[in-house]
Amino acid sequence: MSKAVVLFSGGQDSVTCLWWAKMVHDDVHAVTIEYGQRHHAEIAAAEKIAAMAGVPWSLFQFNALKEIGDSALLNKDEEIKLQGGRHDPETPQGLPTSFVPGRNIFFLGIAAAYAAKIEAEYVVGGMCDTDYSGYPDCRLDTIQSLEHTFKLGLGATPEIKLETPLMRKTKAETVALAARLPGCLDALAHSITCYNGEHPGCGTCPSCELRAKGFEEAGIPDPARR
Amino acid sequence: MSKAVVLFSGGQDSVTCLWWAKMVHDDVHAVTIEYGQRHHAEIAAAEKIAAMAGVPWSLFQFNALKEIGDSALLNKDEEIKLQGGRHDPETPQGLPTSFVPGRNIFFLGIAAAYAAKIEAEYVVGGMCDTDYSGYPDCRLDTIQSLEHTFKLGLGATPEIKLETPLMRKTKAETVALAARLPGCLDALAHSITCYNGEHPGCGTCPSCELRAKGFEEAGIPDPARR
Repeated sequence: MSKAVVLFSGGQDSVTCLWWAKMVHDDVHAVTIEYGQRHHAEIAAAEKIAAMAGVPWSLFQFNALKEIGDSALLNKDEEIKLQGGRHDPETPQGLPTSFVPGRNIFFLGIAAAYAAKIEAEYVVGGMCDTDYSGYPDCRLDTIQSLEHTFKLGLGATPEIKLETPLMRKTKAETVALAARLPGCLDALAHSITCYNGEHPGCGTCPSCELRAKGFEEAGIPDPARR
Repeated sequence: MSKAVVLFSGGQDSVTCLWWAKMVHDDVHAVTIEYGQRHHAEIAAAEKIAAMAGVPWSLFQFNALKEIGDSALLNKDEEIKLQGGRHDPETPQGLPTSFVPGRNIFFLGIAAAYAAKIEAEYVVGGMCDTDYSGYPDCRLDTIQSLEHTFKLGLGATPEIKLETPLMRKTKAETVALAARLPGCLDALAHSITCYNGEHPGCGTCPSCELRAKGFEEAGIPDPARR
């Protein structure tokens, strides 16, 4: 009996991870983190898709991320490089301009703490070092070091294992994987990845462009645009 | 010019760390994390003591810790071992019964993210493996692994260094250190360590007993009880 917690934003990658986890594990739980997303539609989509998956869904608050960003802006506004706006192609999830580095360390940490509580052995995240190579917290070496830190510091039994099934995949390969997981494309019809929080997406922001390119290269129509 | 962020609960150990950091570094900032403490008096004391230290003080919210604990309690009440009550000598800071493991990983992570934002090189925490040996997230190997994870995953310049000046000290040695740091005993007069959130402390809870024992062994009167 293998039990897994999926870090679940409700976006394209984490939806694919959720269906992957349902294929690979016996008992799957989805965890969404509210950290000051600009669009509440993303969280509503996460809840809806978790229900489609038939898995328990938990929402946890992590306000510190936004507070740290805002406080730093207040301290020295002029020195903060603008990040995460709709015109910044390097920011995948519509972060505010007060982006805080290393956020995946916290997100995986929250999922791991929950996993420790419910005695799940696996934590699944959609980190990927090909599309988002600018983010050091998405890279495999960071994930492996974090897993080691959890092993030492959580005292969890069983020890938490971090799984990142999309780590080496291109967006097209992730789409191809989704197409092979029964029901996953239907779920992707409801996922929101647009920086502007729109469904099926504004079509012009970098995130919409990345999604469109992935489906096009995989030769599969985006189910959200059927 | 060395810049440090001190993880600052306002309790005995973190007050000593704050004064230590003021001695060792040029520019010191205090960060307090609100995670569902049972007593708001602890946070008020932290703010007051940071003002005594003359350092900027920031408060960040981390609700997920309490939510994870509560959700796990809801899920399987009977299997959660009661921890952190006033009669549990292993829990140092008055945690609710829904204690979540590995909390120092998050606390140091929040302090490190803030340090990265304000370009501070050092994060100081009062973790100690002698008094609280039951907690794996207080041990040096965990702290070192976490530092390595931040090095890989935060992308901070300069890289964040974690300092734990009390790591190998007994409570009496920490009291002796405090007595050598100018103004630190005066600040300790205002610190709250009591599980019941009382000042100068109920005198009978395990945390009050630990504090009393430390001052007694150091041969120094507790300034909070002068």
